Amino acid sequence: MNKKFEEKTTRKKSIFKGKIIDLDVHEVLLPNGKESKREIIEHPGAVAIITFTPEGKLILVKQYRKALEKAIAEIPAGKLEKGEDPLECAKRELEEETGVKARDWSKLNSFYTSPGFANEIVHVYLAEGLEVGIENTDEDEFVERVDVTLEEANQMILTGEIHDAKTIYAVQYWQLRQLRAFH
Amino acid sequence: MNKKFEEKTTRKKSIFKGKIIDLDVHEVLLPNGKESKREIIEHPGAVAIITFTPEGKLILVKQYRKALEKAIAEIPAGKLEKGEDPLECAKRELEEETGVKARDWSKLNSFYTSPGFANEIVHVYLAEGLEVGIENTDEDEFVERVDVTLEEANQMILTGEIHDAKTIYAVQYWQLRQLRAFH
Repeated sequence: MNKKFEEKTTRKKSIFKGKIIDLDVHEVLLPNGKESKREIIEHPGAVAIITFTPEGKLILVKQYRKALEKAIAEIPAGKLEKGEDPLECAKRELEEETGVKARDWSKLNSFYTSPGFANEIVHVYLAEGLEVGIENTDEDEFVERVDVTLEEANQMILTGEIHDAKTIYAVQYWQLRQLRAFH
Repeated sequence: MNKKFEEKTTRKKSIFKGKIIDLDVHEVLLPNGKESKREIIEHPGAVAIITFTPEGKLILVKQYRKALEKAIAEIPAGKLEKGEDPLECAKRELEEETGVKARDWSKLNSFYTSPGFANEIVHVYLAEGLEVGIENTDEDEFVERVDVTLEEANQMILTGEIHDAKTIYAVQYWQLRQLRAFH
């Protein structure tokens, strides 16, 4: 399958190397022998964390997203430093963004966010057994923690306050968990 | 909330204008008065379609994704043409990629895929009431249709054959639908 559809790079041009993303344009040879171009964003990858308060609320952080020109509420997340272990990154990001630590960590899933043009992958963890960590004193973070019920989360999807793939994934995960608990 | 965290652009530099994406670097003023830069991908937006065969299988298409250097199976999807209505785009993409038409369409959700650096939004539709459409004769598409059971889809998530956010969203949507049907 991979071989059959493979697109071989014949030439690669580096357009931009940034703080967060790089952009390359690949000239590729298609399976039918024709040539085409692929605009590819290189991204270091990211982590995201699903975690609940002792009261059973999902912990979200609101932050301004320049790409969207609006603030949205997302599950805590952050991009990987070069060579960083995803689990270590997840632990760091959870504490930095929400002020809590968790004892028990499990990997739920990984997914590519935009396979058509970017190699960004998000590793999603479930963090359980919360302890209060450091106070969130990083004043350059500009994030605001908000804990929500499942009903509130569903309402926020309708209003667009929750509006990104990983957080909608998290809300679906939560709904599935609750429905399975009934069985 | 939006005002409080807003990042105002003080200067914008266009780095690249491509076939699919544009890249701009914004110099922004942070809420604390400091300056920073934001690398932003402009994308026209996309649609994705959840649809089931009369036998109750989910229709996927396998295709090579240059950004990942591998082929993955995804729900049918495609990017919007400039000014195109998302629903019309969804109808077109479903027929082009899978050879089927659907009578009944409903919007399930919209989500941003990578809010940290891109404004790509995916509009997800449920398509029901399938009819056989045109044969898929677009030889430049290089997609291969594959219809899967829920069990197969879950297995494909484990093996990485299904590996992107919108398709994992679709599989969770399917699981939720099945669990709710039990109640």
